[in-house]
Amino acid sequence: MEGLPGVGAVKSKRVPRAIREQQMLDAAVLTFARRGYRTASMDEIAELAGVSKPLVYLYLNSKEELFSAVIRREAAALVAAVTAAVEPAATADRQLWSGLQGFFAHTAENPEGWAVLHHQARTHGEPFAREVAALRADIVAFVTEVIGMAAKEAGCVGELADREVAGLAHALVGAAESLAEWANARTDEGPSGEREHPTARDAAATMMNFAWAGLGSLMGGQRWTPGGLAGREGRSAPMGEREGTR
Amino acid sequence: MEGLPGVGAVKSKRVPRAIREQQMLDAAVLTFARRGYRTASMDEIAELAGVSKPLVYLYLNSKEELFSAVIRREAAALVAAVTAAVEPAATADRQLWSGLQGFFAHTAENPEGWAVLHHQARTHGEPFAREVAALRADIVAFVTEVIGMAAKEAGCVGELADREVAGLAHALVGAAESLAEWANARTDEGPSGEREHPTARDAAATMMNFAWAGLGSLMGGQRWTPGGLAGREGRSAPMGEREGTR
Repeated sequence: MEGLPGVGAVKSKRVPRAIREQQMLDAAVLTFARRGYRTASMDEIAELAGVSKPLVYLYLNSKEELFSAVIRREAAALVAAVTAAVEPAATADRQLWSGLQGFFAHTAENPEGWAVLHHQARTHGEPFAREVAALRADIVAFVTEVIGMAAKEAGCVGELADREVAGLAHALVGAAESLAEWANARTDEGPSGEREHPTARDAAATMMNFAWAGLGSLMGGQRWTPGGLAGREGRSAPMGEREGTR
Repeated sequence: MEGLPGVGAVKSKRVPRAIREQQMLDAAVLTFARRGYRTASMDEIAELAGVSKPLVYLYLNSKEELFSAVIRREAAALVAAVTAAVEPAATADRQLWSGLQGFFAHTAENPEGWAVLHHQARTHGEPFAREVAALRADIVAFVTEVIGMAAKEAGCVGELADREVAGLAHALVGAAESLAEWANARTDEGPSGEREHPTARDAAATMMNFAWAGLGSLMGGQRWTPGGLAGREGRSAPMGEREGTR
């Protein structure tokens, strides 16, 4: 008996191929994330999807192609989540804030998908690593654009060289990836004992505090020097000196 | 003829095992970084090291063990470079600055070693990825300590929760890794046309501008909010508004 009972709809003996494939990919994401690519078995994936192993091979050909299909689907879902979250008409800092919230919400809601993209896909050889590199390049391009826009808003396009903007974008993306991994790995007890992971909002706020405040100082003409922060407004002293120690 | 001519020293027909091993590891780092772990052949490594393949197997047993030995050596060299660079008695920001310079100088001087640690070791399965995870945990612990020390210097220990410090440390390490990868991958023409890569000092300065300025604001009591930066000193407006657009 393969058909699922229809709910007031036309009953079909077969689940449509598109739906079956998504069920297989759902099962594959969980299995790859839990077991790792090498240890994951097609038997386990088929069982979890509730289908026969030959059907998985019929639809997706091989473990390699199934893994590639998983990476492509999870990468597309992540890009879609970030894109949908960004407020396109907003100021640069709000665009980054909304994009980061979208990113951390998606990685928190799809920890297995994120683990496959961030860890498994980079841990099992070149063709898979390349797919993730392409996804990453898209995200870096978006962040580069936002920082460039912020520089324009702050009227300091000339001060912040393109090369530095690109470096800052890579730093920001690396920071967000690392933070997402950390947020998913740790569990915290919240003030009332109910929370399990740092929320997406917390993670996005940490990133904004970390990165945007620094970018803001930078665009305000302040630069860190070995003698501390120094700016054209001359209002900042090294961190330790500014506040003093208690 | 296997012996190398000694320079005013006792001539030996055999190169000592310890030296031969280092030569094999040198050859292996280059080969793994260029070809990738899977494609790298023991033949190529032996040829590059100037030894026979059986000698490589005799000393290092297998390609897996050779790869593990490479990862351990490169991880130890990176930690040693960062540790040696840090000025232990300095303020927190100078400790981070000196550590980052050590990090970027080492990754720039050893691009193959860094590629093996950052890319290859994470791209070929669990036992290797675990070794790199241990290295990373050490570096995160150092950065956590520096940020904690900075919070103490700034007199804001209570304001910056331990959880947030840990998150910031992960963000900073992820940013530095991402920046090192980017710096090694790109080549720039300097003002006088001579430079090839962003220098270690440039990369460290980008990180300090990015991260430390933000940490400084944070410890000065300023936080980014969806309405822009807000602080107990109330002196900051959102980035776009602070400077205005031209």
